[in-house]
Amino acid sequence: MITEIPGGVCAAQGFRASGIHAGLKKNPEKPDLALIAADCPCAAAAVYTQNLAAATPLALTRRHLSGGFARAALVNSGNANAWAEDSLANAERCCRALAAEMGIGENEIIVNSTGVIGRRLPVEIIEAAMPALVQNLAASPAASLAAAAAIMTTDTKPKEAAVGFELSGKPVRLGAIAKGSGMLHPNMATMIALLTTDCAIEPALLRKALGESARLSYNRVSVDGDTSTNDMCAVLASGLAGNRAIAGPGEDYGNFLDAMNRVNLKLARLIAADGEGATKLITCRVEGANSREDAEALSRAVVASALVKAAMFGADANWGRVLCAMGYSGAPFDPSRVGIAFSDLKVCEGGMGLDFDEDAAKKLLSGKEVYINITAGGGPGEAEAYGCDLTYDYVRINGDYRS
Amino acid sequence: MITEIPGGVCAAQGFRASGIHAGLKKNPEKPDLALIAADCPCAAAAVYTQNLAAATPLALTRRHLSGGFARAALVNSGNANAWAEDSLANAERCCRALAAEMGIGENEIIVNSTGVIGRRLPVEIIEAAMPALVQNLAASPAASLAAAAAIMTTDTKPKEAAVGFELSGKPVRLGAIAKGSGMLHPNMATMIALLTTDCAIEPALLRKALGESARLSYNRVSVDGDTSTNDMCAVLASGLAGNRAIAGPGEDYGNFLDAMNRVNLKLARLIAADGEGATKLITCRVEGANSREDAEALSRAVVASALVKAAMFGADANWGRVLCAMGYSGAPFDPSRVGIAFSDLKVCEGGMGLDFDEDAAKKLLSGKEVYINITAGGGPGEAEAYGCDLTYDYVRINGDYRS
Repeated sequence: MITEIPGGVCAAQGFRASGIHAGLKKNPEKPDLALIAADCPCAAAAVYTQNLAAATPLALTRRHLSGGFARAALVNSGNANAWAEDSLANAERCCRALAAEMGIGENEIIVNSTGVIGRRLPVEIIEAAMPALVQNLAASPAASLAAAAAIMTTDTKPKEAAVGFELSGKPVRLGAIAKGSGMLHPNMATMIALLTTDCAIEPALLRKALGESARLSYNRVSVDGDTSTNDMCAVLASGLAGNRAIAGPGEDYGNFLDAMNRVNLKLARLIAADGEGATKLITCRVEGANSREDAEALSRAVVASALVKAAMFGADANWGRVLCAMGYSGAPFDPSRVGIAFSDLKVCEGGMGLDFDEDAAKKLLSGKEVYINITAGGGPGEAEAYGCDLTYDYVRINGDYRS
Repeated sequence: MITEIPGGVCAAQGFRASGIHAGLKKNPEKPDLALIAADCPCAAAAVYTQNLAAATPLALTRRHLSGGFARAALVNSGNANAWAEDSLANAERCCRALAAEMGIGENEIIVNSTGVIGRRLPVEIIEAAMPALVQNLAASPAASLAAAAAIMTTDTKPKEAAVGFELSGKPVRLGAIAKGSGMLHPNMATMIALLTTDCAIEPALLRKALGESARLSYNRVSVDGDTSTNDMCAVLASGLAGNRAIAGPGEDYGNFLDAMNRVNLKLARLIAADGEGATKLITCRVEGANSREDAEALSRAVVASALVKAAMFGADANWGRVLCAMGYSGAPFDPSRVGIAFSDLKVCEGGMGLDFDEDAAKKLLSGKEVYINITAGGGPGEAEAYGCDLTYDYVRINGDYRS
């Protein structure tokens, strides 16, 4: 059994967290530098954005994780350190400063940045803040929350999740913090999520689980169709739970994956609901597709459609736009077999519009959560994707992001 | 030499046009039924949406054009006749009514509809309006404009273009009307355009020219990433110019294609500039890509990016979003060789941000036309794509389209 527990990245044994205002953001009340530190060497893995213009810190992290182990994760907000002067040197300087302060190896650090692209990272500010950052480390829910707040950009809320479960009779915990908001589209690790667990697991299996889980969660979120340069999902596993180490597929691996999915799905939905300017979370469920891949493509096209998103903002039951988005998803299906419902209100069957109660539809679509349920045909493929509505505030937030 | 001329679809010899209010739209001042009629059988061709859920009228048009000839084009706005009750029967009834009124064959008619998806076409209204529609036919600029107005949905302006040129010593004309606005994305014929020409040309060559030209024009426009169910570009060629008929590739074909490109490019840019809620036209030019295909993919990703579009609305020179969009375009390039300029103001070189005059950039981006000029590397590929900014009004227009 998997149960939700408090504590975020500090829920698992062996982890401390910290989040402070270093000075990268102008507002002194906004934290901008986050650290997760492990008490022992951890199995570690990450998945990265597929954007060809991926930011330098991701390349450095990839190099540091090549052995499958790490001891800390350092993330700043306020500047993406991407396509800017000295981006590699500055990412290295961040790691060097943290390594010196903590007495660990530079190459034991997961590093990333999020914020404006193309401006030099004021690395001196981060170096100067390092003693305070490390001093603030604590193994408490408040410390996890501080770290979650420090990685926020246009997010309106810090995002955390954690679960407890059992493996070989031992209690195991897995928790995470995440940030999302703009530049989100289902195409591999399209945000920043940092996971910690005390599960004992081999790096290869940890990597496999993270890849599978990201596909089912973060890769199914779309806010605006843009895939960012910096987005990444990383995990540290301390092994302190003392379970029989997971070294291959089987029941323990399956249970661990279920727990990871629970955490990642919760965060993915929080990210979608907190999309820039969003007023509601859209969940699109597709059943009856030819395959899971097709169901994924169909559901993702629907939640990514600007026209669907704008209609949901207006609580307008314009299901034709849903069918239209399916039509350009690239997945094959027979439109004349399609059924569409908003929650349980059927609006289309056999590819044809039904007479439905417009007032009831308006009411359903006016809530904070909207469900678009699609039958694509008679196949076995099913999937869900998550998105948000397109609002005036999205335009406002992104019309002048840099100032 | 190709010169712009007035007259739209009535510029070429042998064509009359008409546009009236039949009653599909509630507002009696808004025309909703358009007809282009040829005085003689015409070579004819069309390109269609690639949306899998393509509307029924397109299938009927495809069948009617299978022989390569047609005599009329009938388009209504206010209802898409897509995925609605009796859509095929109703499209056939439209053709039957027009055929009877004009004394031509049902299968000599190009037919299409645009508007809300999923509602039954009130075909009785169209049948009742047919005598008035045909009676109104005239070979005048005013008649072309009336037809252009009658195919509008959320367009704010009717769109027309026409050019004159010479082939084998004879004056030839080619004109068109088009509608665009929402649901526009570069993926084949993503709007409705109707072209007429008095050029003598074989149907196979006409089809070839239309396909090539659509790729260079309409397929490079993006308003919101949505590819519609009903969009189509069709052409009628009367042959009345008396030029030596174009029956194969060569100079005449090249000149004809140039003229068609001129008309289609003008309309494509008018469509982009009149995108739903748009306040400015964005032209993204990419040079130095590995191939034309890559340049197309890169330029299209930039004009389709919600984040770029929102930044342009805010006149914010956030070039990092341009690089980011290139990064997920699917086209390979080396980010460290990329240069980006807004008009002639360089903001990025060698993949790095330059110090630039923010005030000058703001001024450049505040105009009605914005130029994003990209050097992707040292390759021979170049292309342009056209889009518009993402504004509050896009959200307003699409939040409650059906009411």
